[in-house]
Amino acid sequence: MAEGAPLDVLGIGNAIVDVLSHADDDFLSAEGLVKGTMALIDADAADHLYSRVGPAVEVSGGSCANTIAGAASLGSAVAYIGRVRDDDLGRIFTHDIRAAGVEYATAAASSGPGTARCLVMVTPDAQRTMCTYLGASVGLGPADIDPDLVRRAAVTYLEGYLWDPPEAKEAFRAAIAAAKAAGRRVALTLSDPFCVERHRGEFLSLVENDIDILFANEDEIVALYGAEGVEEAVGALRGRCPIAAVTRSEKGSIVVTDGAVHEVPAARVERVVDTTGAGDLYAAGFLHGLTAGLPLPECARIGGIAAAEIIAHVGARPEADLAALVAGARPAGSSAARW
Amino acid sequence: MAEGAPLDVLGIGNAIVDVLSHADDDFLSAEGLVKGTMALIDADAADHLYSRVGPAVEVSGGSCANTIAGAASLGSAVAYIGRVRDDDLGRIFTHDIRAAGVEYATAAASSGPGTARCLVMVTPDAQRTMCTYLGASVGLGPADIDPDLVRRAAVTYLEGYLWDPPEAKEAFRAAIAAAKAAGRRVALTLSDPFCVERHRGEFLSLVENDIDILFANEDEIVALYGAEGVEEAVGALRGRCPIAAVTRSEKGSIVVTDGAVHEVPAARVERVVDTTGAGDLYAAGFLHGLTAGLPLPECARIGGIAAAEIIAHVGARPEADLAALVAGARPAGSSAARW
Repeated sequence: MAEGAPLDVLGIGNAIVDVLSHADDDFLSAEGLVKGTMALIDADAADHLYSRVGPAVEVSGGSCANTIAGAASLGSAVAYIGRVRDDDLGRIFTHDIRAAGVEYATAAASSGPGTARCLVMVTPDAQRTMCTYLGASVGLGPADIDPDLVRRAAVTYLEGYLWDPPEAKEAFRAAIAAAKAAGRRVALTLSDPFCVERHRGEFLSLVENDIDILFANEDEIVALYGAEGVEEAVGALRGRCPIAAVTRSEKGSIVVTDGAVHEVPAARVERVVDTTGAGDLYAAGFLHGLTAGLPLPECARIGGIAAAEIIAHVGARPEADLAALVAGARPAGSSAARW
Repeated sequence: MAEGAPLDVLGIGNAIVDVLSHADDDFLSAEGLVKGTMALIDADAADHLYSRVGPAVEVSGGSCANTIAGAASLGSAVAYIGRVRDDDLGRIFTHDIRAAGVEYATAAASSGPGTARCLVMVTPDAQRTMCTYLGASVGLGPADIDPDLVRRAAVTYLEGYLWDPPEAKEAFRAAIAAAKAAGRRVALTLSDPFCVERHRGEFLSLVENDIDILFANEDEIVALYGAEGVEEAVGALRGRCPIAAVTRSEKGSIVVTDGAVHEVPAARVERVVDTTGAGDLYAAGFLHGLTAGLPLPECARIGGIAAAEIIAHVGARPEADLAALVAGARPAGSSAARW
């Protein structure tokens, strides 16, 4: 894509390589991990846990980066900002996101901690439990937010996880300021219920004042509003954010606006292999539809198709041609055949 | 396993991390690559080719290391010798082979080229084409061959690829000398038809004088004897090596000894996804059976089962519990469910 051309979505997030292995429930218990969540760990804990997991596969990840790679596969014009180190994992992340068609130019750190990695443990029920060592991604700061890139993008998409490293939080605020100055929209994913609990007050204020499009799953929206259940949370949400999409796994998603609540069923999945990236890819499809000017239920439907592709294989980057999937055409290889 | 305990197989090979991507035939042609083969490339060519392939997945590889990881999964007591650099890819290789249950203690290089990587391009016909940058693996030398480790192993298994780096070739010769001195058997895989062509005279002499168990596919055995076809090659082979196993893809394998030729059918594969590692895992199953004292046709049958598992998914390290597969039990997850 030509430099300076308009972009549909700019994503800003923690640039992470996933280290995928299989584990059982006993292993999670022994390591004190809560299934289905993301825990932040330091370098020593990451080394310890890595020494205990089985043989692994490395795939580029990072919640927001997965979304952006997914939007690229759907045909959106997209860019990404996130920090790696100039090490092997950083080269892997950089190659994969560029090879997916994403504009990516954040300078790699030449010293300090290594590229961020996320130990993803997939249990036999296809659920994933994650432990992230943020490494070089915490070096992302306001200076990395190119206001011109923000101006070029119809939507700037931020992950809640960015609120964890203090410098990245400043980058996050700088991006919101740049987007508002340019009259662009800002989208946020709440990322994880524990992440919401860590930053609940600030997230409530963000949603009410700065965010145009909110993504959350049931646990996250319930955590945000301290609600008893998802209905109560959706009630609390109404009127507080122009567009909010709440994902509900196999029950589909709910799109909430001031004027309406749309319930959209999930796309059919023959066999759920690994749920890593389901929310990320839902956001990819939704934002693709939204920036293409499609009606909200159609945005949610495309999100569901993209999520269905990602959970049918291991890893959180699309393997099928998502645009072809959405068009209803069979891709060249089914996802099972591709990885 | 206790240090000093007897080993079934010691493998010596180039320690490599695979970088798996999808490509079509046009891409291979444009890059001047011959489908189904392995080409050696230098660091610049590796960087160039990597910049051109699509998003990738990283999985530990290395022909001999795949065999040893497979034998471990089958329940054999195994060790591996091969050189990595102390970089991210080297840490990935080291973690994965140890996590597979393999004794591995070769010192990582602390300077010089990075850990070896193999760009594996999988075409829609499930065939793989490989370009290898040997990197740190060329630093393997005779000093890395611990004679005690060789003495502990019933079979020392060498890959023909080791003949490419000059120092590794000396390591290879040192291992043969140590095995002979200890009254142990030596196994060799011819690795690749181009590799055979590069070293044909020396390989002929090796097979006739030093090797007890030979592994080759049809192309490799035909290249070794400059034969018109596999029947002529098998004829030339008879009487030259105590045991030779020639793999023939979906036609199964032929085991050739002085006294007999056994034809063993292939194991059934529902869907071939990626043929990377088929030969490596055949050797794993065969050596597992041989060191367990099983008859040769049974060794070939186990080799076929291990090969069938590996070609049903992407990557050349086993994902299912091979011992359970051989026992006829269903593994905890089918291979499709595991990756």
